[in-house]
Amino acid sequence: MDLDLARHLSVPGESKILLFVMDGLGGLPHPETGRSELETARTPNLDVLARESACGFTLPVAPAVTPGSGPGHLSLFGYDPLKFNIGRGALEAVGIDFDLRPRDVAARGNFCTVEGGGAISDRRAGRISSERCAELCAKLRGIRLDGAELFVEPVREHRFVLVIRGDGLSDAVADTDPQREGAQPLEPRATSPEGEAAARLVARFVEEAKRLLAGESPANMLLLRGFARRPDWPSMSDVFKLRPAAVAHYPMYRGLAKLVGMEALPAGPAIDDSIATVRENWGRFDYFFMHYKYTDTAGEDGDFERKVAKLEEVDAAVPALLALGPEVLMVAGDHSTPAVMAAHSWHPVPFLMRAPWTRSDACDAFNEVALQKGSLGTFPAMEALPLALAHAGRLTKYGA
Amino acid sequence: MDLDLARHLSVPGESKILLFVMDGLGGLPHPETGRSELETARTPNLDVLARESACGFTLPVAPAVTPGSGPGHLSLFGYDPLKFNIGRGALEAVGIDFDLRPRDVAARGNFCTVEGGGAISDRRAGRISSERCAELCAKLRGIRLDGAELFVEPVREHRFVLVIRGDGLSDAVADTDPQREGAQPLEPRATSPEGEAAARLVARFVEEAKRLLAGESPANMLLLRGFARRPDWPSMSDVFKLRPAAVAHYPMYRGLAKLVGMEALPAGPAIDDSIATVRENWGRFDYFFMHYKYTDTAGEDGDFERKVAKLEEVDAAVPALLALGPEVLMVAGDHSTPAVMAAHSWHPVPFLMRAPWTRSDACDAFNEVALQKGSLGTFPAMEALPLALAHAGRLTKYGA
Repeated sequence: MDLDLARHLSVPGESKILLFVMDGLGGLPHPETGRSELETARTPNLDVLARESACGFTLPVAPAVTPGSGPGHLSLFGYDPLKFNIGRGALEAVGIDFDLRPRDVAARGNFCTVEGGGAISDRRAGRISSERCAELCAKLRGIRLDGAELFVEPVREHRFVLVIRGDGLSDAVADTDPQREGAQPLEPRATSPEGEAAARLVARFVEEAKRLLAGESPANMLLLRGFARRPDWPSMSDVFKLRPAAVAHYPMYRGLAKLVGMEALPAGPAIDDSIATVRENWGRFDYFFMHYKYTDTAGEDGDFERKVAKLEEVDAAVPALLALGPEVLMVAGDHSTPAVMAAHSWHPVPFLMRAPWTRSDACDAFNEVALQKGSLGTFPAMEALPLALAHAGRLTKYGA
Repeated sequence: MDLDLARHLSVPGESKILLFVMDGLGGLPHPETGRSELETARTPNLDVLARESACGFTLPVAPAVTPGSGPGHLSLFGYDPLKFNIGRGALEAVGIDFDLRPRDVAARGNFCTVEGGGAISDRRAGRISSERCAELCAKLRGIRLDGAELFVEPVREHRFVLVIRGDGLSDAVADTDPQREGAQPLEPRATSPEGEAAARLVARFVEEAKRLLAGESPANMLLLRGFARRPDWPSMSDVFKLRPAAVAHYPMYRGLAKLVGMEALPAGPAIDDSIATVRENWGRFDYFFMHYKYTDTAGEDGDFERKVAKLEEVDAAVPALLALGPEVLMVAGDHSTPAVMAAHSWHPVPFLMRAPWTRSDACDAFNEVALQKGSLGTFPAMEALPLALAHAGRLTKYGA
């Protein structure tokens, strides 16, 4: 739903909506058994839910498109991920829980190795350790920039985030990363006149960093890409009249949730902790996004059996989810991560919505085959929230 | 289909298309039986039709959106209801069969009660009788406006329509209705410079009306909202090359049909009368929109059994519909009105199309569960007419 229409139709209310996201939920058949992770797992509680719910599949971005974590979640939050883009640098900053502000320009950084002549011999500096990365970042923090603050934050291995904070800085700065070895790092250039002030600060930073790293090995240089500012998006409270909270252990998902105006509540890694957090905050919010990461991790690792086990772990928690008493419960995924592919994929993602006023359908189990009988069919993930609002009595009529 | 594309592809012809609309057709399961109104009703004729037809569900406006009567019908007529908006005042005028013209500005009016200090104590003046409303409207018709004609038409209870007819009048006039009690009626203000002439006339009308109503009780004042002109839309004959007629007993639906260029034929309340009207006019037109209201009325009243009975009444008329011999027969609804909700809803609406060149599908009955096996799936209602045109041999090939 277009956000202007949502803003026009949505109304505040007392009903509660709970979105439970299993990261990388969807799967594919195991070559030996012909059954997917969900078909293999014993999920009696999810199967009962499917019988009582409207079922189907979500398309996170568009048919055939494999989503990253950002687009996969934004669509479930009701935002069209083809319109609401987040630049790489900003996503990277948000993903380490950096408090990115409106005056900030962020970039993704790599430590790399250059040869005597300046050509890049390893874009990842041999994937130095995270500890070494943190030490180098500390060193670079000593650089002083005229009229701007500097943040250099380690991520993992050779990766870091650069943030420059200052007045009137634009993110119209080109990558210094040529994306291939054998080439020289590129000069930081403005891609439009507004970018010139930021480009000068970046050039100054790179020059100083080159000097400070010259004696290091193998990380004797750095590459920057994806300069981006914090996106200024309408909040879920503005558009959907919700008081939204996020319960997510991983910083990336908390960060994404904060970009659409959710309050990020503290959450441990265990699903029971997340449920406890929701329970404690039940009165303060009317929309909860709960994130469960380990289905995706198992899928990415190509570990079919572990993904099955994680699905069964979630299934065991379903009674506690229901006991919270949401008017609308959605069980969803941000994308598929089939263990047999060991990667995110473009496949539509299993979805169910338990709510008042759903139609009957013939789904009797929560898996990729049974859900094909669902009454919701395969639909854009960004329609899930409007649908939940409708079922929660939170959308008014369009037209007289 | 975009109207420019439709204009480009459509051709005149001899084939006949009949759209039979059951208002508020779609339903939801009864809590005791788990079966919807359509699943409960005995509809042997519709079930045979479903077996012989292409079946599915229409989305009148967009997923999750509950349509009013205007958008629900416009989409079935082939017009995107998110683009073709009709202002409240114009719809209200059209809804009482007022002959709204291009020089008219219309507003919805309420008689209300104000206290001594001018604050509104009852926005609906205790819902005065329709008779009293008609008397008060007659009184207000005596008001004279410089250079403009005035129409004050009763609707029902406290509601009326104000129409000002004059040259160069814009509808850029703000509501005088503050939408809450305790506040004073607002001054009629222009919302842009073009609205100033109309705002002055409205102000003059309100001033005179206030004087004329001062001695009345409880309807001693009025509120106006939704100033709107008659929309100037392309006609179905222009866009789709059809000679279209509407057969509807209720003024609202005749009015909507006239806005897209249909000729409104006289029709009594009974379905047999409507069929007789179509039969008598069979040679003059090649598209007939037939409207049946009582499924919606029963749904809105929350009367599950009466809605079931009305569906059975329609079912009994199906042989007479078929005997007319249309090339394409569509059985559709403008929106769902589940009796268990006693209101319009956002749920997709049952649809079938009996026509040459349809594919087989597994639908063996006309209800919300069986239609999930339909070959048309769930599709935008505005695609129904282009589809009918295609099956009627009235759309040419796109591209060489």
